[in-house]
This record gives sequence, structure tokens and C-alpha cells, in this order.
Amino acid sequence: MNQIETEDQPGYVERQVRRNRRGEIAAASDNVGQEWPVALVYNGISHAVMMCTPRDLEAFAVGFSLTEGIVERGSDIHDIEVYYRDDGHALPHAEVHLQVVQQAFASLKDKRRALAGRTGCGVCGIESIDLLDLQPERVPDTGFLARLAPDAIERAARELPEHQRLTKLTGGLHAAAWCDESGAVRFAFEDVGRHNALDKLIGQLVLQRVDTTQGFVFLSSRASYELVRKSARVGVPMVVTISAPTSLAISIAKQAGLRLVSFARESSFVEYDVE
Amino acid sequence: MNQIETEDQPGYVERQVRRNRRGEIAAASDNVGQEWPVALVYNGISHAVMMCTPRDLEAFAVGFSLTEGIVERGSDIHDIEVYYRDDGHALPHAEVHLQVVQQAFASLKDKRRALAGRTGCGVCGIESIDLLDLQPERVPDTGFLARLAPDAIERAARELPEHQRLTKLTGGLHAAAWCDESGAVRFAFEDVGRHNALDKLIGQLVLQRVDTTQGFVFLSSRASYELVRKSARVGVPMVVTISAPTSLAISIAKQAGLRLVSFARESSFVEYDVE
Repeated sequence: MNQIETEDQPGYVERQVRRNRRGEIAAASDNVGQEWPVALVYNGISHAVMMCTPRDLEAFAVGFSLTEGIVERGSDIHDIEVYYRDDGHALPHAEVHLQVVQQAFASLKDKRRALAGRTGCGVCGIESIDLLDLQPERVPDTGFLARLAPDAIERAARELPEHQRLTKLTGGLHAAAWCDESGAVRFAFEDVGRHNALDKLIGQLVLQRVDTTQGFVFLSSRASYELVRKSARVGVPMVVTISAPTSLAISIAKQAGLRLVSFARESSFVEYDVE
Repeated sequence: MNQIETEDQPGYVERQVRRNRRGEIAAASDNVGQEWPVALVYNGISHAVMMCTPRDLEAFAVGFSLTEGIVERGSDIHDIEVYYRDDGHALPHAEVHLQVVQQAFASLKDKRRALAGRTGCGVCGIESIDLLDLQPERVPDTGFLARLAPDAIERAARELPEHQRLTKLTGGLHAAAWCDESGAVRFAFEDVGRHNALDKLIGQLVLQRVDTTQGFVFLSSRASYELVRKSARVGVPMVVTISAPTSLAISIAKQAGLRLVSFARESSFVEYDVE
């Protein structure tokens, strides 16, 4: 029988390892980031399985639903229930059950009919170039970038490590943080997947009724197409990443009028194709 | 009119940037990794779109087809044609047209019917936990691990950077390399996506008729579920990664009897749950 929990998992597990240093072998235990299959179930119908760190799944489900365009706004989601299933021998997994407004569910069903027969892989199950969303929304100009402190990016780069608790424990998770106009980190989430970390962050902003046009996203990872597109969809004015951007991330940011900053360090950063 | 090319793209493009160092701003140009939508079309039917670095797409298509179980063996693919489409204003993309044996195509069509109506996201379009492949093949024991040189992992860690030409240029691609029993790097591929880099590598091994059970995979990235599962599918006996593994990567490697090594450096590495 499945053991069903509704409490968050720790985010890491202890595993026995063998460390090899210049040929000398030592047994040890080590912390490893949890990666679980997480099914997203809308009005009783399973829609997607993501490989996720099983924490903050309510925020994750809200963020995913918004950034993938399944719902238009947070209030389209009426109810969320999260279940962690770990019976100790089969591989553990989680399910998030969402109740969404009839209109969003009808549109999800329509989309399913329109895409009938797909066995998509890759970009969120997209099976042909024509279905790909390469026309991002314009990010509204709310004057946030003009109010940004001159050292905000550097401050965020300096503060982020304090919020990477699981990364410190495991050496290997991604972080997504929300920073205000001074660069102070207001929220941060970690996950084995960088898209998941961003979805958790955006979901939390929506759950807390934080205006997603009045702050910026800071990511420990690289900037790819999907991270920029997800951010543009909720009107985020600036995305800052520690590592490199891709060509398509730059194009999409430019089209969306979103400021893209990469290679962010405590004393330097690089900006791409700013308008 | 689309300009259609069949030659590989360079893998990077030059972009104008502004560097900011302690508040001093300098205009510069910088190389950025190319990320293009790449459609995989089987016997005329578009099946998936992956975000890829547009090089080595023939190898990529062979590797993807094998590691995703679309074909059983390389000889199930009769023909591959790669087209790069870049008309200078719309976003560039590529198409790979594969002709596969009737049996593989019929099974792909069956799978499409069985999964009719999905709008999957996440793990290769999987929409429910039940459809998830958490039972990897056992990797055959061909004695390769017993023949591995004691310093093979360290040697591969030392040699890999020489093969990361695009990473040197852009600061941000993933690499996947194939190493022999001495740890010498025999093939290496780079991509903005770590799964793509691995698929390119596996595809090249198959195209060159290299035995995928007689060597090991060395990845510049972390070890996640999918990278281990893809490697197990073609019988790779060992996966070595520079960064951390996830809990599910460790479980799947154990089930498959595949040796998993992470945090690989020139003088140390960590091994997980080896049988």
C-alpha cells in the first residue's frame, strides 16, 4: 500500500558513496538532490509529468500552469492538492491535482483534440515548428527598470548563495530568485530542473500576490529560450543569469522587450541586444 | 523565400553586447551558442521539436531515435536528410527528415494512437506516471569495466576541455564525450542541451559502428534520470559526470547495472551505489 504524504520532502536524500582521491578509496555518505516524477492532473485528467525536486509543489503547479499558458491568471485555479507517494520500494513520485475554471479546462481539452495523436518530445510536447510559440508577449513597461538601483545586479549575485541551501548540501541544484529594485533577494527556490525552479518562483509570486512586473528574476543557470519565454509570459521586465545565454534567448528577450543580463558576478555582468 | 542549407551551422553567432565591470560600460562583441528549433520528421510526419545547436544533426537524429526507443537499431533508419532554414528575418530553424523501416513507423503510429489527445509536457511528452519508463534495460556485462585503466576517469577529466571548442568560444555549452578503456576521448559533441549532446554522441557511435558497450560516456553536466536512461538503452556500461547526480539517476543506474561516477576531476571522483 502506498504511503501518502502531503508534507514537503526534504529536497535531498542521503546516499552511500565511495570517494576516490588519487586512487585512495573511502566510504562515505553524501547528500543527493531528490528527483521525482511529478504528475500534474487538471480536473481529474493527467496532463504532464515533470522531473522535479519534491518541495513547493503547490507553487510549482501554479507557476507551470501560468507560464505554459494553461491558465490566464492565478484565480483561474480553484484548488490544489499535493500528494507525495513513497512506499519505500517502488520509485517515489508525486501528484498535484488542480481544479481549474471550466474555461481553462475546456481550452486544455480543445488543445488536446487539436493536437490529437501527438507523441511529442522536446519543447513541452510540441511536435512541429508551426506549433512553436516564437512570438512572445511584449513585457509591459511599468518603469521598473528606470528605478533599478545601479548596483542591484551585483547585490543579487552576492546574496543568492545564502539562499541556496540545497545546493550547499548536494552540490547540484538550480536556483531561481526574485529580487526587488535594490537587488535584495525576496524569494528563492531550488530544483534539479532550472525550468522547475523558475516555475516554483513564479507560482509563489502569484500565490503571494506579488506584482511580477515589479522585480527581476535571477537564475543560477544559463539563459535558454524557455526560461525567457516563461518569464515574458508573466511580464517580468528583466532576467539575469549567472551563466551564458543562447542565441534564441537573446532573440526572444529582444522581441519581448525584456532586459537580458548574463554572466552576472559580484562585480561584472554582460547585457545582450538591449533596445 | 527560405534560404535552405544542408551544411552544418558554426554552432555560435556573434552578438553585440555591453560589458559592465564595476559600473564601467564597454561595447563589445561576444560569441553566443546557437539554439534553434529542430523538427524531427519520420516518414513525412513531424514527431518532435527539440531546441538544439544546429550542428551534427544527422548524428543527433540517429541518437535521439535510438535512445527514445523509436527505432531498435541504426539499420532501422534508411535515410536522413538535414535542412537548415534561415531567411535572415524569421527565426531560423532546422528539419531532419528520417526514413525508418515500416515496423518502426507502424509502432510510432500505434503509439500516437494509444496516446491520442495528449498535450504532454516534461519527460518526452509523457502525460501520466503510468507511462513513465522507470524500468531500464540491464546493461550487458561485457567485461569492459574490468579492463578499465585505473586512471581512466582522471584522464578523461583532463582531456575533455581540449574537445570543448564551442564552450571556449561561448562560455556556455554542454559536452558529451566517448572514452575508451584508457580514458582517451574518442568522440565529443557540444550542444546547448545536455540531452542533445548525448544523443549526438550516441548517434555518431552508431553511424561509425562503434560498439556502445565498449567505452564510457563522460558528460560536462550533472547526471539526471534521462541521461542515465538514454545511456542504459544502448548498453553503455559507465556514465561519468563532472557535476552532481540526482536521486533518480542513482536509482536508475543501480537498476540498470550501470556504473555511475560524478564530481569527476583530474584527481578525484565519487561513485554511487555500485553493485
